[in-house]
Formats: sequence, structure tokens, C-alpha cells
Amino acid sequence: MRVHLDCFPCFFKQAIIAARLGTNDEALQADILKGVVDEIRATDMSRPPAYSTTFLHRKIRQLLGKDPFKEIKSEYNQLALGLYPELKKRVGRSSDPLWTATRLAIAGNVIDFGIFTSVDIIGTIERALSGPITVDVYQAFKAALNDNPEVLYLLDNSGEIVFDRILIEVLAAMGKQVKAVVKGSPVLNDSIKEDAVEAGLNGVCAVVDNGSDCIGTLLEFTSPEFNREFGNARLVISKGQGNFESLWDDPEVHRGKKIFFLLQSKCDVVSKELGLSKGSMLLMSR
Amino acid sequence: MRVHLDCFPCFFKQAIIAARLGTNDEALQADILKGVVDEIRATDMSRPPAYSTTFLHRKIRQLLGKDPFKEIKSEYNQLALGLYPELKKRVGRSSDPLWTATRLAIAGNVIDFGIFTSVDIIGTIERALSGPITVDVYQAFKAALNDNPEVLYLLDNSGEIVFDRILIEVLAAMGKQVKAVVKGSPVLNDSIKEDAVEAGLNGVCAVVDNGSDCIGTLLEFTSPEFNREFGNARLVISKGQGNFESLWDDPEVHRGKKIFFLLQSKCDVVSKELGLSKGSMLLMSR
Repeated sequence: MRVHLDCFPCFFKQAIIAARLGTNDEALQADILKGVVDEIRATDMSRPPAYSTTFLHRKIRQLLGKDPFKEIKSEYNQLALGLYPELKKRVGRSSDPLWTATRLAIAGNVIDFGIFTSVDIIGTIERALSGPITVDVYQAFKAALNDNPEVLYLLDNSGEIVFDRILIEVLAAMGKQVKAVVKGSPVLNDSIKEDAVEAGLNGVCAVVDNGSDCIGTLLEFTSPEFNREFGNARLVISKGQGNFESLWDDPEVHRGKKIFFLLQSKCDVVSKELGLSKGSMLLMSR
Repeated sequence: MRVHLDCFPCFFKQAIIAARLGTNDEALQADILKGVVDEIRATDMSRPPAYSTTFLHRKIRQLLGKDPFKEIKSEYNQLALGLYPELKKRVGRSSDPLWTATRLAIAGNVIDFGIFTSVDIIGTIERALSGPITVDVYQAFKAALNDNPEVLYLLDNSGEIVFDRILIEVLAAMGKQVKAVVKGSPVLNDSIKEDAVEAGLNGVCAVVDNGSDCIGTLLEFTSPEFNREFGNARLVISKGQGNFESLWDDPEVHRGKKIFFLLQSKCDVVSKELGLSKGSMLLMSR
């Protein structure tokens, strides 16, 4: 999807969240907001918001001299690990563990420090498990899993990856070979290899990185190794808005594969793009 | 009050409102957002938000080659004039016409295209007239009016000035000499002389302009004539957030005079500054 005029205020909102996480120095916080205006001006209106915010967050890390999300990523990994035993029990008790774990993976996507600074994880879990969600192609998802022994799983945020681990454990129990993909280096609160280790994902499936610090999956910036993996994949699970923004539109991306998008539409622009109300939970493909 | 980090997203929100009012050309709309980033970067963190947005709106008018608010200002003047007869009746029926007209003047401040693109005028009027408002120094306001034969009345938005006209008519009936102040040239949806004429204010009181295109009242940019008027004034009525932002803090501004601020706190930053919830209606002084 293309960036929208209404993304511009949100560029600053993201920069404010990052600046406040990165420093208590109010002058530096202001310098960071002023320091990203060239990146905002360079916004390519034909590209997704994730394209612009990639450059924005690169500049913020440079201005701060560090990754402002490092601590909070670990906090949310730990918080989600605290929920893990109970969530595993719910999946174990379920008459359809795949269904329950899929819903949990969508619920986990509420953890997103690009957009929220506080999240109602418990409420979101209950909402995901208690009734219909806005778009739900679960039967097609299940059928695609039956047809494909291998799954390429594009992870999104820290904390959220503990929820992904639960779904990946169900997939592994179904005999699927899952390869989970993290970012190559820190960006926003997206998961990198350290987060996968902290979330206990390493023992469950192969974890590879995409060689890039981009929001979402921008195939022009990801590594040749990842691009080969992605090109060869027949079944892809794509988590979150960033991956949605960068992969949904382009027919070339979908050629020869089925991509299932598991996400919550957390902002007005993505919600408007989809014609859905903000906060919608989505399991969709095209 | 000083500009706040959280004003930065709002700079773009204001630019989006102005760009969409000014043109349907999406490429030009994007160029306008990108065209104001230098003004945003130049934000002086020691000055009020109104200071930054003054330069922002100047740049937007320059990029558009016109005043994007011209038509909508007239629409809201006409809309408010349509309400005028009924509102006059309510003031006429009131046991305290000054009280009722003051509340209406505060209600009218909900019309503000710097912040909203649609407003619930009728609901706001009923809310203003039906019960207590958040800060209400009405007795002190009434007493100050009894002590002072002259009032300098700093107007704010178009449409809103029809509500101000009703209060000024009550003040005139009390024998007060009111001088109403409009902006010297267009900025946002603030009232200029044409709006005062359209709202029928010219027959009611003297209308002068402040010689400036600034949001609020920035005394370093207003004309020497206005600054003399302001300096000599003993009783000032200040409408809206822009005037509040630019006049509330500085003790020098208040020396030798009493300023009553009639406004609604329409944004998070002003509300936070005041320690009040957004949407509060305020009649206050210091």
C-alpha cells in the first residue's frame, strides 16, 4: 500500500515514542523530531509507509547513538513469556489447537510500539478467542497448511513473538518445517535474533534473519539469502502491519505462493485502505 | 505556553486540513506537507505553538497561492448567522443575559479548523448552557465589567464571531465601549475585517485589526497601533486557544490589566498544560 497524507502526523508520533524511550533529555527529544524532517520530506508517495519509517527510525537511532527500543523489547518478551504457560494450556485444551494458536498469534500483534505505548494484552487475547474476527480465511489457511510441508514465517514485534512461538509449536506438532524470519538489525520494536532467543523460539524452529533493518519486508533491501528463501517459499505467514504494507499490493510478490496475513489494523490509514474499522483482527490472503 | 513535542504531529494535521481545503490535487497536497518541514524544523521550543503555526500557515498560503480557509470561513459565518435569531431569543429570555451570552461565546469557540473539520455546534451550545463548565470565574468577570467602561475584545475564529457579536451586543446594552480586534490578514480560519462585516459586527462595536497574520496575539508582530490599544486596555476578553497560548504565561502581558480567557481546550497539549480534560469549557483569568 502507498503512504498517505495522514501518515505524516504519525511519522512524528513514532519519532516522539522513540525519542522518549531513548532519552529523558527534552532538548535532545526536540532535536530528534527536528532531525527527522529531511527523512519526512524525502517520503516517496508511491511507496508504503514502512518505506518512509525505515529511514526515519535509522535517523533516530543515529541521533540517539543507540537503539531506543532495546529495553522495552526485552520487557515485552518477558511479559509475554509470563503469559506463555497459561496460553499453552488454552491451546492444549482446545478442540482445534491450530485455530486457537492462530487467534493468539493475531492477538499478540497488538504489541506495537510504533503505534501504542500501552496495550491491553489480556483484553485482546479474550477478544481474539471469544468470537468472530473481521476477516477470517481460517479454512483456506488450514487447507494451505495441509498442502504444504514448509512454512516461511515472517515475524513482527518483540513480545508478539512469544505468541508466534505458540503457533509455530502447533505447526511443528503438525509436522511442518517452519523457518521463522527476524530482522537483520534493530528497527522499532521488531524482533531480531536476540529476541527470538529470549522468546525461546530457537529450540522450536529454524530462525533466520532477513539481512535488513527495514520496517516490514522490503525485498529490495533484504539479503540475497532471504530473497532466495522468500522466492522459493510456497506458504508464507506474514505478521503485522509493516509486512502487510510492504507485501500486500504487489502481484509479483504473491506469484507462486500463498501468503497469509495475520495482523490487527492498528491505524486509520491501514484501516481505511482495507475499508475496515481500526482495531480489526485479520486473517487474510489474496 | 511553550510548544510541546506532541504539537509536532499536530503541525502536520493542520497542514493536511489546510492542504485539503486548498486543493484537490493530491500531488500538491503532498508537496505542501513536504514544503512545511523547514518551518517545523525552525520551531522555537521556548515559544507557544501559535508561534510555529504562524510560520507554517504563511508557508502553506504561499505554496497554495491563496488562502485555503476563505470559503469555509464564510460558510461558518453564514451557518452561525442562521443560529443568531434563536440564540438572541435565548439571551433575551435569560434572567442573566450576560451569563447566557458569555456561555454562548465560549460554545462558539468549538468552531476551529486548525483542529476540527466538523463540529457539533448545537450540542456544544446546549452543553454550555445546561450546567457548570470546567473553570468559571463568572462573578469576577461580571465585577470587572462593572468596574470598567471599556473592553478590548480579541476575536478568534470566523463563525465564532457571530457568537461574540451576541456577547458584544449584551456588553453594549450594558453601556460598555467595546473594541473588537480581528487579524490584519488571513491566517487559518481566524476572523479578519471581511468576516466581521459578514457577521454583522461592524454595526455593533468598533472593529480594529491587529496588523498581523499571526495565530493568537504575538505582540512582537502586531502593529504599533494595536500594541498601544492593548497596552492601554484595562479589561481584555481573549477568545480561543491561540490567544491563550500567546498571552496566558507572560506576566508583563497582564500588567495593569485584567484578561479574561474564554475558550475550549481543544487539544491534548493545551489540556495537559491546564491539567484539564480535553473539551473543557473555560472562563478564566490570572
